Amino acid sequence: MRALVLEENGPRFLADRPDPRPQAGEVLVRVLRAGICETDLQLIQGYKRFRGVLGHEFVGIAESGPFAGRRVVGEINCSCGACDICLGGSPGHCPSRRVIGILDHDGAFADRIAIPQRNLHLVPDEISTDTAVFVEPVAAAYEIPAQIRLNRNDRVVVLGDGRLGTLCAQVLAELCDQVFVVGKHPEKLRTLASLGLSTTLLTGKPDARRADVVVDCTGSASGLATALELVRPRGTIVLKTTIAGTQSMEWAPVVVDEITIVGSRCGPFDRALKALAEHRIRVDALVSERFDLADGVKALARASDPGVLKVLLDVNAT
Amino acid sequence: MRALVLEENGPRFLADRPDPRPQAGEVLVRVLRAGICETDLQLIQGYKRFRGVLGHEFVGIAESGPFAGRRVVGEINCSCGACDICLGGSPGHCPSRRVIGILDHDGAFADRIAIPQRNLHLVPDEISTDTAVFVEPVAAAYEIPAQIRLNRNDRVVVLGDGRLGTLCAQVLAELCDQVFVVGKHPEKLRTLASLGLSTTLLTGKPDARRADVVVDCTGSASGLATALELVRPRGTIVLKTTIAGTQSMEWAPVVVDEITIVGSRCGPFDRALKALAEHRIRVDALVSERFDLADGVKALARASDPGVLKVLLDVNAT
Repeated sequence: MRALVLEENGPRFLADRPDPRPQAGEVLVRVLRAGICETDLQLIQGYKRFRGVLGHEFVGIAESGPFAGRRVVGEINCSCGACDICLGGSPGHCPSRRVIGILDHDGAFADRIAIPQRNLHLVPDEISTDTAVFVEPVAAAYEIPAQIRLNRNDRVVVLGDGRLGTLCAQVLAELCDQVFVVGKHPEKLRTLASLGLSTTLLTGKPDARRADVVVDCTGSASGLATALELVRPRGTIVLKTTIAGTQSMEWAPVVVDEITIVGSRCGPFDRALKALAEHRIRVDALVSERFDLADGVKALARASDPGVLKVLLDVNAT
Repeated sequence: MRALVLEENGPRFLADRPDPRPQAGEVLVRVLRAGICETDLQLIQGYKRFRGVLGHEFVGIAESGPFAGRRVVGEINCSCGACDICLGGSPGHCPSRRVIGILDHDGAFADRIAIPQRNLHLVPDEISTDTAVFVEPVAAAYEIPAQIRLNRNDRVVVLGDGRLGTLCAQVLAELCDQVFVVGKHPEKLRTLASLGLSTTLLTGKPDARRADVVVDCTGSASGLATALELVRPRGTIVLKTTIAGTQSMEWAPVVVDEITIVGSRCGPFDRALKALAEHRIRVDALVSERFDLADGVKALARASDPGVLKVLLDVNAT
């Protein structure tokens, strides 16, 4: 099959990668469309030292199992289902998990992916194939209200006007009346404004120490430090993006101002599917460009350009 | 008056410092006893660039106001009482606050201290003068259950067998059945064991990634990294100690494991006074040594020796 593989020297398109072999409980899915995420770019930078087929945002057609022939999306954590942590209700944190396209498991930038049947969700007809690519990141955005208490009057700042920031801001705007996206890119902020969101340029010096909640979606090592400047004493910072390598900062202000910092990763697919089916979260404006899988290396480079939001990969026709 | 003053070149005993001048709303307190805290040692290392009389753990006799002639302890944050944050119920986070012995306000290692009347609490007869020195750090320990939800079955690790760790462990052991103090000093751990607490040497490799809550009381730049090794996925780390300067660490695990990090500082004096009056928290075993105020420089040096818990300063006789 065709596949976009991360190798020692970087990502590479292969026309003749062997098909994945499903392990026990896994089925094959023929990939239709996939999306490039900030994490893919971090993996290329060395995060997790991943080697293999990239890609964890996808929609495809199940080739076997109870969903055979139907459109599916898949949760990315492949858990053992038997350890204390799985049985305790956090399978996404299973210590022996593999993670699709991220950790010890080939991903979705390929004609076929093997994935545990229990990770799959049917895509309702109301959701187009392009839109379904966003289920995984929209679910990640819904992890925020699953973790922290949000009040209608909370002043919320979403830091980062990129792919994930745009989705988090829409999810949070359902729950809080004052959501501000702070970003560096005027053209991206215009897209966000067209979705009805309030936006501020970072250079415009947003109010310091006023936000009840700051969500860091910058994918940048400076994101947390900026978040600390914006959050009020006793406020909450949610970290949505993972960064490769080591970061430096002063820790004392976190203690002195009694800040709460919450790491936040994958979220509930059911809530994301419902919101997308009901058109409460809008994603069309976020598709900046699309490439054929064969041009995947070019697509990855494009996705890291500053002005770009979501880059889609066309893998197979429906 | 006599005073222990932090100057450009370090701490220095002065026999002839002018008495403090009370500002509006402040009263003078004649200091009886004071305690040396990790924060004092950090201030000497350059934290906050503080200059002036050190000391924020103290008990004294009010010289004027409604408590005149009686023993008092004092909250350390001197707030404006009028801003949004004060009126919102967080006077300890007032942006224009001064902090006794830490920020723009002379402290208690002196014959007299000026302090807002509203910061004072009467010391009940059940609490000895030595014990009353511990009200401020015991209150800081009670800030933890005021901030996070603790369950009876939570597995709690207190990291650090020093002054604050010992108090936090006792407070948490009231609420949780499984509290373990992890430290580096066998003799300090023996003291903790004598208080009925479970202890483990750090070198004994405590169970990795098993704790529901880890409280970092190390006062060390490596504390947070160790806490991250011990906390379970989706667990909580409470940071109790402030460190001068910049720390480096990998941020990605906080996100991947969805860890919550909570900065925690000053706490409720009323709860601390009640617990000490009822002898629920025991502090006598923690007094390692006592010095006369005139030997304060020596006392500060002694407080930073590895085997030492609380060092008291005798300032005035009752």
